[in-house]
Amino acid sequence: MGGDYAPKANVLGAIAAHKSLNAGEHIVLIGDTGQIKPLLLEEGFNPDHFEYYHTEEVIGMAEHPTKAIIQKPNSSIGLGFQLLKEGKIDSFASAGNSGAMLVGAVFSVKTIPGIIRPCLSTIVPKLKGGIGLMLDVGANADCKPDTLLQFGVLGSLYAENVMNIPRPKVALMNIGEEDEKGNMLALATFPLMKETELFNFVGNIEGRDLFNDKADVIVCDGFTGNVMLKLAESFYMLTIRKGFKDEFFDRFNYENYGGSPVLGVNAPVLIGHGISSPEAIKNMLFQSRDMINSQLVHKIQAAFH
Amino acid sequence: MGGDYAPKANVLGAIAAHKSLNAGEHIVLIGDTGQIKPLLLEEGFNPDHFEYYHTEEVIGMAEHPTKAIIQKPNSSIGLGFQLLKEGKIDSFASAGNSGAMLVGAVFSVKTIPGIIRPCLSTIVPKLKGGIGLMLDVGANADCKPDTLLQFGVLGSLYAENVMNIPRPKVALMNIGEEDEKGNMLALATFPLMKETELFNFVGNIEGRDLFNDKADVIVCDGFTGNVMLKLAESFYMLTIRKGFKDEFFDRFNYENYGGSPVLGVNAPVLIGHGISSPEAIKNMLFQSRDMINSQLVHKIQAAFH
Repeated sequence: MGGDYAPKANVLGAIAAHKSLNAGEHIVLIGDTGQIKPLLLEEGFNPDHFEYYHTEEVIGMAEHPTKAIIQKPNSSIGLGFQLLKEGKIDSFASAGNSGAMLVGAVFSVKTIPGIIRPCLSTIVPKLKGGIGLMLDVGANADCKPDTLLQFGVLGSLYAENVMNIPRPKVALMNIGEEDEKGNMLALATFPLMKETELFNFVGNIEGRDLFNDKADVIVCDGFTGNVMLKLAESFYMLTIRKGFKDEFFDRFNYENYGGSPVLGVNAPVLIGHGISSPEAIKNMLFQSRDMINSQLVHKIQAAFH
Repeated sequence: MGGDYAPKANVLGAIAAHKSLNAGEHIVLIGDTGQIKPLLLEEGFNPDHFEYYHTEEVIGMAEHPTKAIIQKPNSSIGLGFQLLKEGKIDSFASAGNSGAMLVGAVFSVKTIPGIIRPCLSTIVPKLKGGIGLMLDVGANADCKPDTLLQFGVLGSLYAENVMNIPRPKVALMNIGEEDEKGNMLALATFPLMKETELFNFVGNIEGRDLFNDKADVIVCDGFTGNVMLKLAESFYMLTIRKGFKDEFFDRFNYENYGGSPVLGVNAPVLIGHGISSPEAIKNMLFQSRDMINSQLVHKIQAAFH
């Protein structure tokens, strides 16, 4: 039920994803079956291919996340996290209220022991092909050095296991490449990353390095990451509006990747863009599958054990 | 002598600017006249149009700013600030070592009384035409709420007096538009800006709003501003590399604006891009003139009196 074009875009995305499922893989739709099932029939799709949990309650895009999660346990998001917690689903994805998705993840499946703060990551297209990961992009506006160090571990494990990048290059977003550059946070984080054996730290990078090959995983506080993400999105929208066609800018389209993985909680959780199209929903479902199949959560749990 | 293409680009820029000077306006070249004068003659330009202060010493692009300023008072940058302090020149601009320019400005002409920290600003093209100002973009990696409030005053005065924007709209860069969004710095700054009568505060904006009309003056800490500036520059370079031609992206070219004004010191100071072309140098000279003619520094001094 989440997203600006729900439930139709979500239903169409699920139908598209269904075609590529392997044996033993199931899509579970959580929401108002009174709305969902007629949409499936309209598409000539057999509703029996999906499983359903019916609820008519929804959390609105503008609702206060924590209040909504507490007051609406039977909303589609609330129910989704309940099912995730009970193990009835293996991954939960929604294009609904992002804050409620974050809060719901932490309240239900909980933060992985040893992790200070879960974070929100985003996939970044690389100029030479392939993708990178930037984190945090908004879950933690204020961060401490040890939190950023953990983001490096989380991002490195995601890049290695889900994006299949061997020995991912992890960099710290900063205002200069030299070791002694930065604000107090970056200055205090740099030596922790330089000394760590938890990932392959390649040093500081700058705003101009987001799309080049210096790093596969870019670590920053959630304020910086959020501002960068939105600035990059606005540029992508500009190239669309101006009618520029280009392979790299095409790969900028969030639809290709699906959602933003929430990293550091005890189950795969993905947050989709509010404007998620059927294509975006489909790819978010594939990304959910990749997070399940790679056993990323188990690997993160083991790393912080 | 500053910049990757100095002294040739600087000399050519000065020649180009000379053509548009009004009566009583003079360009002063500071550097190795042994290199400068042959370049002028090569161009068939009468060297008597300019004034000169000769020095052969330079501060390299990679030198430590504070050390270099202290140890090389007779470098072209050191001499420039000496002349600025003595009132022998009314404005000083260089495409050389940015850090040395910042340190030199504070050491020589000093911070305006009442100002906590001078800052570095950058001109931002607006989609609907015209330009905006973003500050700080790197002089202060860590800021406090009252520093950001002052950046709002500095930016508003620059926009009003140099960019000729009446009642400039000042916004705070943040991760959401709502009053209660932000990191600790933004959350503490917002109420100060909301209550101030020192400028026309229009609220929070996001990374995606850099080029739209929500704000004429965008206030942020120097870490965020530097990362945004470099990310935006990398996008501009991409559009060039990809061969996209567009009026808006053309206006992105720093060459059109010249340099980055240092705001909050007792004289006009401009820092040019390291890769400054003759066109950039020319426009930096015009920007210097605008800063002098608008009496910006006097207006800032009066505002903080």
